[in-house]
Amino acid sequence: MTASSALPYQRLHVELDARRYPIHVGPGLLDAPDMLVPYLAGRQVMIVTNETVAPLYLERLKRTLSGDDRDVRDVREVILPDGEHTKTLASVERIWDALLAAGFNRRCTLVALGGGVIGDMAGFAAACYQRGVAFVQVPTTLLSQVDSSVGGKTGVNHPRGKNMIGAFWQPRAVLIDTGTLATLPARELSAGLAEVIKYGLIQDADFLAWLEARMPALRGLDVEALTEAILRSCAIKAEIVARDETEQGQRALLNLGHTFGHAIEAHQGYGNWLHGEAVGAGMLMAAALSQRLGWLAADDMARVETLVADTGLPVTAPAAMSADDFLATMRLDKKNIDDRLRLVLLSSLGEACVYDDTPSDMLESLLADFPRA
Amino acid sequence: MTASSALPYQRLHVELDARRYPIHVGPGLLDAPDMLVPYLAGRQVMIVTNETVAPLYLERLKRTLSGDDRDVRDVREVILPDGEHTKTLASVERIWDALLAAGFNRRCTLVALGGGVIGDMAGFAAACYQRGVAFVQVPTTLLSQVDSSVGGKTGVNHPRGKNMIGAFWQPRAVLIDTGTLATLPARELSAGLAEVIKYGLIQDADFLAWLEARMPALRGLDVEALTEAILRSCAIKAEIVARDETEQGQRALLNLGHTFGHAIEAHQGYGNWLHGEAVGAGMLMAAALSQRLGWLAADDMARVETLVADTGLPVTAPAAMSADDFLATMRLDKKNIDDRLRLVLLSSLGEACVYDDTPSDMLESLLADFPRA
Repeated sequence: MTASSALPYQRLHVELDARRYPIHVGPGLLDAPDMLVPYLAGRQVMIVTNETVAPLYLERLKRTLSGDDRDVRDVREVILPDGEHTKTLASVERIWDALLAAGFNRRCTLVALGGGVIGDMAGFAAACYQRGVAFVQVPTTLLSQVDSSVGGKTGVNHPRGKNMIGAFWQPRAVLIDTGTLATLPARELSAGLAEVIKYGLIQDADFLAWLEARMPALRGLDVEALTEAILRSCAIKAEIVARDETEQGQRALLNLGHTFGHAIEAHQGYGNWLHGEAVGAGMLMAAALSQRLGWLAADDMARVETLVADTGLPVTAPAAMSADDFLATMRLDKKNIDDRLRLVLLSSLGEACVYDDTPSDMLESLLADFPRA
Repeated sequence: MTASSALPYQRLHVELDARRYPIHVGPGLLDAPDMLVPYLAGRQVMIVTNETVAPLYLERLKRTLSGDDRDVRDVREVILPDGEHTKTLASVERIWDALLAAGFNRRCTLVALGGGVIGDMAGFAAACYQRGVAFVQVPTTLLSQVDSSVGGKTGVNHPRGKNMIGAFWQPRAVLIDTGTLATLPARELSAGLAEVIKYGLIQDADFLAWLEARMPALRGLDVEALTEAILRSCAIKAEIVARDETEQGQRALLNLGHTFGHAIEAHQGYGNWLHGEAVGAGMLMAAALSQRLGWLAADDMARVETLVADTGLPVTAPAAMSADDFLATMRLDKKNIDDRLRLVLLSSLGEACVYDDTPSDMLESLLADFPRA
């Protein structure tokens, strides 16, 4: 494949058994048909986006996808409300209704234009429409670029828990236009950086050191630094996912900070804390528990605290949340096997493990002692 | 695996890449823990059944699944209303709500006890609960025994079309207790036999001749004949599915009669014609079109008509249905690629093909001429 435009971009391939797909990263890729059109299954294309992103990028994407006189495509859109609270089965039903109203068959393609919520819902809609149709992702937030781009996790929330209904469904391609980060609020940039830090913590001490040095540049939207951070993050995640596509083992390491973080999100109401903010605080809690288990030195713990703070993320848990509040949600976590709580902890900086033998009193005192806002 | 009970049974294995699962067929298997328990993922078991089947078989199955003092399992049930009209996303949501209310994690197992509607919904619920949990099928109608047992198709209807929302999800095991056919209404037995005939028509002329000879025995619930018909049907379907798990090519042959049949079901309202009845009439329409194309001799056509009639299935289309009524639904069929109608037709008795070049006027006149009730 060659780019018809002269856009600079980098590419990474995610390797999965029978399926292999590219992640293209670069500025201005929204305007590059050659990065998108080869991955469409047929002429029917449904863009799924939200009310925040549509005014910014929908028309550009439609123009890129629509084709020329010789190869016209039927490109339509579903525009959903914005926010984590919209990540429901009812929203996915709106996508299915739109597909059926348009008479789209199973050679259609769903294109997700937006953040993680849009990607998760559009991917789930694609996974289940006529038992599975083609899916392409155009993530426009840093979080979705480094998280949802790899792994094929799709789904929606249920009143009783986050991501309880969903499917594993891989995209045919991911297109990351780094230009979209210019319109991202600073708070969401920090939330995305939480996941970037996570990759360093669980698997790559060098990347962690690079992040400590480059955090001001990243928060200042330095394009070169962001591109490198995105590519290294996706590469680490791709390597872990390729080893464990359906999350039986290793892939659980990607949940560092998420068990604590989901409890915060569930307690505070989804969307009040950004996912990345909850993961930021959650990673600190996981690190603090690792320290109590004797796995992390005080110096290492201090480095994690400093990096999370430098990223602009919360370093405390919500004031109103008790240890029992945490435990109530954590017991429902998908990683648990039968009744045992399984947590992702740090065996050292740059190395994580799944641990199901934390003494209950140690966990409870950590939950009680951890600083509150 | 050995049967602790002395029940006679036969077994077939469905071979799929990384997954291989057994179909056990025999009388009284509902009471055989060794045929079921090894396929449970953990201790949490949710039986999904309906109001018709529950009074007949639920307690027996619960007893078989619950285990003894040393290995107690948490076995619960969801009892849904009966009928094709309940095959909706709302019913599947009831299953998800029950799983979440019970606090079931992703090592739980869903067990479908009932006909095809229950199997399709329980399978879809399993496919999407926490992005996929274990699934075991205990089909209690002939149709579901020879159809849903193999292939992994799950899903629900949408007001705009049948099976429009769903997933491919394979069971860990299928247990067919032939004893359950004793409680099946004769009309449903005939509907199940429609699918059995289909396997002969598309792939096995010998089996077709066997069916012509054994149809009275089958309708008379001769256990030996039924067991052989079930095993041969599942074996033919398994062979086709193993070649084409996600329905890209060959597997479409299994849809003989279904494109016409779905149109009848959609027009008449799902559930008024049984699925197998609609497929029975649909197979006759496909055969008649094959005859017009010059592929089927008059004698062959007469054999198909006689066999469908001998099975107790309708040999006419609904009185109120026009050719346009057929075409309106057929144009939405999932087999279509872009705008071309693709039909499964008979190239000879015992051999089918997918054909997308039927002249429009030939199809329209067939639809107009075919006998109405």
